[in-house]
Amino acid sequence: MRRWNGWGDEATVVELPAHGAAFLGARLGAGQVLPDASLEQVLAQVPASRLAAHPLISTDAEVRVRHARGQSLPDWLAMREGRFGQFPDGVALPESAEQIRQLLAWARAQDLVVIPYGGGTSVAGHINPQASERPVLTLSLERMTRLLELDEESQIATFGPGAAGPQVESQLRARGYTLGHFPQSWELSTLGGWVASRSSGQQSLRYGRIEQLFAGGKIETFAGTLEIPTFPASSAGPDLREMILGSEGRFGVISEVKVRVSKLAEQEQFYAVFLPSWEQALKGIRSLVQARVPLSMLRLSNAIETETQLALAGHPEQIALLEKYLALRGARAGKCMLTFGVTGNRKQNALSVKQAKQLLKGFGGVFTGTLLGKKWAENRFRFPYLRHGLWAAGYAVDTLETATDWGNVDNLLNQIEDSLRAGLAEEGEPVHVFTHLSHVYGQGSSIYTTYVFRPGQSYEQTLQRWQKLKHNASQTIVNNRGTISHQHGVGRDHAPYLAVEKGELGMAALRSLADHFDPDQRLAPSVLLETHE
Amino acid sequence: MRRWNGWGDEATVVELPAHGAAFLGARLGAGQVLPDASLEQVLAQVPASRLAAHPLISTDAEVRVRHARGQSLPDWLAMREGRFGQFPDGVALPESAEQIRQLLAWARAQDLVVIPYGGGTSVAGHINPQASERPVLTLSLERMTRLLELDEESQIATFGPGAAGPQVESQLRARGYTLGHFPQSWELSTLGGWVASRSSGQQSLRYGRIEQLFAGGKIETFAGTLEIPTFPASSAGPDLREMILGSEGRFGVISEVKVRVSKLAEQEQFYAVFLPSWEQALKGIRSLVQARVPLSMLRLSNAIETETQLALAGHPEQIALLEKYLALRGARAGKCMLTFGVTGNRKQNALSVKQAKQLLKGFGGVFTGTLLGKKWAENRFRFPYLRHGLWAAGYAVDTLETATDWGNVDNLLNQIEDSLRAGLAEEGEPVHVFTHLSHVYGQGSSIYTTYVFRPGQSYEQTLQRWQKLKHNASQTIVNNRGTISHQHGVGRDHAPYLAVEKGELGMAALRSLADHFDPDQRLAPSVLLETHE
Repeated sequence: MRRWNGWGDEATVVELPAHGAAFLGARLGAGQVLPDASLEQVLAQVPASRLAAHPLISTDAEVRVRHARGQSLPDWLAMREGRFGQFPDGVALPESAEQIRQLLAWARAQDLVVIPYGGGTSVAGHINPQASERPVLTLSLERMTRLLELDEESQIATFGPGAAGPQVESQLRARGYTLGHFPQSWELSTLGGWVASRSSGQQSLRYGRIEQLFAGGKIETFAGTLEIPTFPASSAGPDLREMILGSEGRFGVISEVKVRVSKLAEQEQFYAVFLPSWEQALKGIRSLVQARVPLSMLRLSNAIETETQLALAGHPEQIALLEKYLALRGARAGKCMLTFGVTGNRKQNALSVKQAKQLLKGFGGVFTGTLLGKKWAENRFRFPYLRHGLWAAGYAVDTLETATDWGNVDNLLNQIEDSLRAGLAEEGEPVHVFTHLSHVYGQGSSIYTTYVFRPGQSYEQTLQRWQKLKHNASQTIVNNRGTISHQHGVGRDHAPYLAVEKGELGMAALRSLADHFDPDQRLAPSVLLETHE
Repeated sequence: MRRWNGWGDEATVVELPAHGAAFLGARLGAGQVLPDASLEQVLAQVPASRLAAHPLISTDAEVRVRHARGQSLPDWLAMREGRFGQFPDGVALPESAEQIRQLLAWARAQDLVVIPYGGGTSVAGHINPQASERPVLTLSLERMTRLLELDEESQIATFGPGAAGPQVESQLRARGYTLGHFPQSWELSTLGGWVASRSSGQQSLRYGRIEQLFAGGKIETFAGTLEIPTFPASSAGPDLREMILGSEGRFGVISEVKVRVSKLAEQEQFYAVFLPSWEQALKGIRSLVQARVPLSMLRLSNAIETETQLALAGHPEQIALLEKYLALRGARAGKCMLTFGVTGNRKQNALSVKQAKQLLKGFGGVFTGTLLGKKWAENRFRFPYLRHGLWAAGYAVDTLETATDWGNVDNLLNQIEDSLRAGLAEEGEPVHVFTHLSHVYGQGSSIYTTYVFRPGQSYEQTLQRWQKLKHNASQTIVNNRGTISHQHGVGRDHAPYLAVEKGELGMAALRSLADHFDPDQRLAPSVLLETHE
């Protein structure tokens, strides 16, 4: 069963290995464990619903608890402490576009706020109810998960918007196809959520971001149904798909998603290469992508992430052997691990691997074969579970991310890491910070930074620490030519920083669209665009 | 010097070869030649300008004539007859974003209509002044053509919006780079125009459409300057780039364009393959693109286009030899020519060519090497000149285009060709119609149809013939799941058909943006969105 106060299925437990605990202990001091609340304690706080009875709406307390929070660190702290703040007044569970339209009409008649809800995996406060005089209805798409149609000739699949990653892939794979969209949240996040938040998957280098995969579909708005046809491309004015991508529930509820799918590839493999320094590694990864070598994924850990990953892997003897091998070949302290993947037919893959190896050799790359790549692939969705292991050991972990042009990647990365590393200096608390680049483009790269710190004496103090770290890093990002998000979206947490990149005029344009589709600001108010009265 | 009443430079003359004239004569009857007006006759019609004097604005009659019309067939007929209808009251020639802002402020103060003007190559009525109580100022970007900055690390080039294809490429090639955007209008059309109309180039398979190449820039609007930063990707809400792409001058004037550029490739080659039938050819091209063989261009002519091209090539003996060779290998009557290109490093290109040949062999493909491919590359921008040769021989030619999903390509193509072929049946006039697919995607393809017909006894009758053909074909397209344009844009000619694909709600959303950026409907009124009062 899915955890009510954390990530994923209860059956999956990822503990922090002893070696990893020692590694963190040496850097952050002994862990600080805070007490967890029980589900019963939380259920006792759920107030009476303000909603009239409706056949499609559950007002059950546990259902409301389970749809009240996402997966940001503030969400985590609230769930662990058992102080949820607001709960939705009810959770609607429609099974069709028609039922979504009925629910929206009812919401207008009853003067409700409506929060569209996919997998509940937001790390930016997309789905948290706010205190509101209007009752809050969370509209979950979890019953709309089916593959409705697969056009094999056009390679377009039509899905219910609530299909989570495994539901998408299993239904497609049964027919020989894949969407190829694998965000780290893949186990729980949904197709509709990916579209609404402009998600990106680990193999975007081959399959594209959700912007490239989203072919069209239906969006139910308070101004009517928007139906977006599936042209492969068009020059007929601004693209309506792009209006919905990143709309984060503000303009409407996605009721049907059409996606561009691919035949399952003949072969897929992942390889690890170690580069002797960050400088060399950065040049290597940029050269690879700018040379258009047809790879399906690229992920470059900086030196601290490489060191941390090897420490947390939990096999110190094997790691020691690996490090000895690498050192002999020139990759010593400061080395950076680059993982790359090829997906396609065998001959093309062989050429791609050969060209990648050749090119990386020019930057001192030490090739280690497929073993570590296989490990990466096996564990690609496990990282979110590690928050549990770290928390139990007395450490809080969060991530943040951006993207910028190549000419600014190193600068911005350093500024972000510095801002986090020094963020709790006033309190004398160290912060362990490391980074990888995992979505690379001809023009630049995403920057994905993880930071680990000790909780304070209380939940409140812990939240304050997070707020300080997050605010400083967010300011650092937008003031240094980074986007406030490359793959997590805006939500409420990033909304205050959005105007720096969109400009006041751009913000006003987005507001004019929100006013057009949702004149009463009934949908996910203050998400994406801060509330304006 | 550029022709005032037709395509391109006066020095370039493309005549219809005798063999081609005979071919058309057999299909359409003897040509019907209509008399051309002289520039002097046209200049005599230009009325006095209604504009006050302004240092950045020319009210010279010839300048106004040269900015009054695009390159649609109605434009051609108007220019040839010398009945231009409306002229702009003046042409502004700014040299900087600051001057554009000054001109917009002046236009507001003077209550003018403003038409942003790039290369004047619109084939959909984007830049034609309409009768208007407000004086009309055409704002030409032809003095803003410079490469302002080239960030080689991030592979981003900053250009003035008025840079035409050759200006873009020559400035980049001098530094070892290419944009790789080659629409057929490349010699005259401009970067700003490509962005505003969502253009696509012949090698979009490698370089992407202008949507993928446009990285950001500046747009001067009546609500202020919109500055779009250059992130490689972002999930921070709807993408403002996509709001400007396809805005066709309705929202603002593009004053600076940043584009994603590539290093010049080591090798580029084009090959021709003949497929024995349209059915086989269609399957072949779809297989190629769905298998993701890294090609840089694909163009498939249907049987009639193949036959027409070979007839119009003007070397009947050589063509006869080619046809003999093809027939021996199974490509006889009904054969279809497929041209494909590879651009990249030699090893990758060799593998791509090998895989393409192998795959096409499975569909009966007869490979002919690089000779015809070279011809295609040499002549890739000559087709628009052929209108002159055809007109002189007494034939009118026009093209129209759309895109649709693979499952609908054959159906839509046939419907379009049928509608054109039978379009003048009431008058007993045949129409020669042929088609190619030149932009292919995993999900579908563009459909590019050329139609040749005889002018009537008068210009008026000729225009009526065109209107009938164009209207029927446009209806056919939008009523059969095609987009009203894959690469030419909407302009005024396609605006009446746009609502079928955007829906009333989508149209209203676009209108809300137009109202936001241009509340007085001063910019290119009735382009893209029909005027609404």
